[in-house]
Amino acid sequence: MKKIAILGTGSVGQTYAAKFITLGYDVMVGTRNVSEKLADKSKDGYGNPSFSEWYSANNAVKLGTFKEASAFGEIILNATKGVESVNILKLADPSNLKVKILIDVSNPLDFSKGMPPGLLPELSNTNSLGEEIQRTFPDLLVVKTLNTMWSGLMVNPLMLGGGDHNAFICGNDSNAKSIVKEIMKSFGWSDKNIMDLGDITGSRGTEMYLPLWLRIFGTTGKGAFNIKVVS
Amino acid sequence: MKKIAILGTGSVGQTYAAKFITLGYDVMVGTRNVSEKLADKSKDGYGNPSFSEWYSANNAVKLGTFKEASAFGEIILNATKGVESVNILKLADPSNLKVKILIDVSNPLDFSKGMPPGLLPELSNTNSLGEEIQRTFPDLLVVKTLNTMWSGLMVNPLMLGGGDHNAFICGNDSNAKSIVKEIMKSFGWSDKNIMDLGDITGSRGTEMYLPLWLRIFGTTGKGAFNIKVVS
Repeated sequence: MKKIAILGTGSVGQTYAAKFITLGYDVMVGTRNVSEKLADKSKDGYGNPSFSEWYSANNAVKLGTFKEASAFGEIILNATKGVESVNILKLADPSNLKVKILIDVSNPLDFSKGMPPGLLPELSNTNSLGEEIQRTFPDLLVVKTLNTMWSGLMVNPLMLGGGDHNAFICGNDSNAKSIVKEIMKSFGWSDKNIMDLGDITGSRGTEMYLPLWLRIFGTTGKGAFNIKVVS
Repeated sequence: MKKIAILGTGSVGQTYAAKFITLGYDVMVGTRNVSEKLADKSKDGYGNPSFSEWYSANNAVKLGTFKEASAFGEIILNATKGVESVNILKLADPSNLKVKILIDVSNPLDFSKGMPPGLLPELSNTNSLGEEIQRTFPDLLVVKTLNTMWSGLMVNPLMLGGGDHNAFICGNDSNAKSIVKEIMKSFGWSDKNIMDLGDITGSRGTEMYLPLWLRIFGTTGKGAFNIKVVS
């Protein structure tokens, strides 16, 4: 049974954890403080159940600290808030990250200047979260993907237009990208709809698309959409 | 005959000028210095003919200074480099801009940090070129549109996928947007494929999409593509 660590307990982390369980993975979700997280009964602000409520309904999922989860996972998925991701990965302990694949689905959203968020200036234009993670943890095999859509769609592309829309992928290690593509195919993504944008600097483009995503979402009120590249 | 001013003599300006002539408009292209522009025989860096060569083959097009073109046009189209747009519009003389529609198809690309360009930090995340123009010239009716694709496609959407892909439009004045939509329909855009993103702050999203556009272009080598929103 393949072991995967999901860093982050929000709706994105929950979505991936549940999906990987249905696909037969051994899943540990990582959080900052396990007992505090389980004691926290607050909703997530979007009306979703608290993590602890979700967790008691998903008892095949293991829960650990960021460090425990990173040690456990053969593959690590970053579903933390972009503004915190690098610091959280430092808590994970770099020795647990060496030569592991990190699937980065996060975005460096900046909520500090009001809504809707832009991106953190230091992680846009000439940098990106994907690159920053790769630069900080050079042994990690960072694969940036699926950050351009709502999490429900990430793991279930067939819910929309027969799955005929695009996911982007980038990263410096071709083999790591191939492994992540296979995971994406197990979600329902077809090979032809996964567009490889090359090395990790491709993260700039996919992350900077987020303000357009947010604007379309804000205008239509529907998060279940994606883009298809027509050529 | 409707009079339109095109600010900018690059390939985007040329594409619009030629298109508006075929649609029966009276077209004046605006440039900084008419005699210098006509004397300049250099190619554009992409192997396209010089402006003066293009201009002698398109003799229905008038040529004037930014100020003359802005005074001439009932509608003005900004096809200048984003980094220069606000200063060029100041040269156009604000008294020529009052209560006119300005169609802004430009992007605030920042070529100063190497290739591929990001966006100018002061015109991204919490601002945009569309907003900056609107803020600087409050009487102007700024409509941001068509900046998310190659210029050939802007004026000829039917060349791709039967025209079934999206253009975005935003601006503070509904009537101005309606007039610009009619122009877009005359290019071949169908009403259902023109997505209205609300007020001019929607420019942030469409401009910040550019790094993804550039990355897809850089990876595929094909500029003739666009995105379709699947929902």
